[in-house]
Amino acid sequence: MTGFVSFVGSGPGDPELLTLKAVDRLKRADAVLFDDLSSGPILAHARRDADLVGVGKRAGRPSPKQDHVSQLLVDYAQDGARVVRLKSGDGGLFGRLEEELVALRAVGIPYEIVPGVPSACAAAAAAGIPLTRRLTARRVQFVTGHDVTGQLPEGLNLAALADAEATTVVFMGKRTFPALVEMLVAHGLPETTPALLAEAVSTPEQAISRTTLAELAERLKGALTNTPALILYGPLAEEG
Amino acid sequence: MTGFVSFVGSGPGDPELLTLKAVDRLKRADAVLFDDLSSGPILAHARRDADLVGVGKRAGRPSPKQDHVSQLLVDYAQDGARVVRLKSGDGGLFGRLEEELVALRAVGIPYEIVPGVPSACAAAAAAGIPLTRRLTARRVQFVTGHDVTGQLPEGLNLAALADAEATTVVFMGKRTFPALVEMLVAHGLPETTPALLAEAVSTPEQAISRTTLAELAERLKGALTNTPALILYGPLAEEG
Repeated sequence: MTGFVSFVGSGPGDPELLTLKAVDRLKRADAVLFDDLSSGPILAHARRDADLVGVGKRAGRPSPKQDHVSQLLVDYAQDGARVVRLKSGDGGLFGRLEEELVALRAVGIPYEIVPGVPSACAAAAAAGIPLTRRLTARRVQFVTGHDVTGQLPEGLNLAALADAEATTVVFMGKRTFPALVEMLVAHGLPETTPALLAEAVSTPEQAISRTTLAELAERLKGALTNTPALILYGPLAEEG
Repeated sequence: MTGFVSFVGSGPGDPELLTLKAVDRLKRADAVLFDDLSSGPILAHARRDADLVGVGKRAGRPSPKQDHVSQLLVDYAQDGARVVRLKSGDGGLFGRLEEELVALRAVGIPYEIVPGVPSACAAAAAAGIPLTRRLTARRVQFVTGHDVTGQLPEGLNLAALADAEATTVVFMGKRTFPALVEMLVAHGLPETTPALLAEAVSTPEQAISRTTLAELAERLKGALTNTPALILYGPLAEEG
């Protein structure tokens, strides 16, 4: 008797931004594996007798536990459990979904992916702006600000990232942002390009500040951590 | 007494992919303005005495009615109504949110934006793939396949779009895809790049087919309409 794994995007943090399907899957789960960012009210949808297993990994820290998480998923499912693997935001966006999918496929465990509200969409909504605009912001791109070692990823496509007619959202990139801005400006993107820092999006601690690339890079110099934050830059960042 | 407008992302179509907040706003609305893509089960959350107003515009057709929609929003709100403006997917992504926000700001009507599950995230989830992968797909970008006249937009950033290490999702781009592929291949992206066509995502008619850039361009030659479809290409399109 093989179980089943539902990878469930839990949205950006606000429990009201769970989907009805996410709530349904939580209610029916025998076990819920969650990251640090999942909040109590989200987990409260699970049955009282369900196993709630924290498998947290904090941003910017290498994660030796990834194999461990995959193994836990496999173990629960092979015991016949209905498992929910919560992923903050939408699991397909920088959620390291791939590694866990591969582990399940390797042993033939069935799964589904339930999409969620990406934190990038929630950040823009909270700032009162759209991510796209006809004519002046017709492309939107999401990138990660760090690689497995916590550094700015190598081989960045600067022609894409320094495009003044796109909206760019950098996930988990506070610490590396000054270095990124240096490269963007060298590639021709104006220092005065509007930028927006969104911290703790859709939680009671949410803070959104409007600034520019150069100002934000200056402010983040010496930032020690990649605490949950999104940086959005492009023509729309000054609206709202 | 001024009303209030909630721009609500209704998700990709599956009523279960509504957020709890979307359901709450629908239940409390005096009027709901919706597009063609909103389904009956979604609207069924509204009160029985709420005004349900269809303001549909079909993909690929110029929309002379945009001003009319903004005016309706203003009129309802100035009458003191709680208005929900439903937008399929996430309203901030190619939802023409900007025009309606500007109209409300101009007359000082308060509003909020409730983010939703983007159809691009739902398409990837339905195909069983993530949108990003460490090392080989670290950037994801969403673009529209047509401008206001229904043609491929001018001034495309081909360095961004022909990047073999990104996942690209083209919204409403069936009809213009052959022309886009010609440009991508001329810019160096291999014809054999994996591509995925996702039609009617998250509805009972959902159809997902895996192919390549060249094959899909050939298949779509002569396509007459931009029926609701997403095209995803990049290294992840062949997974799942």
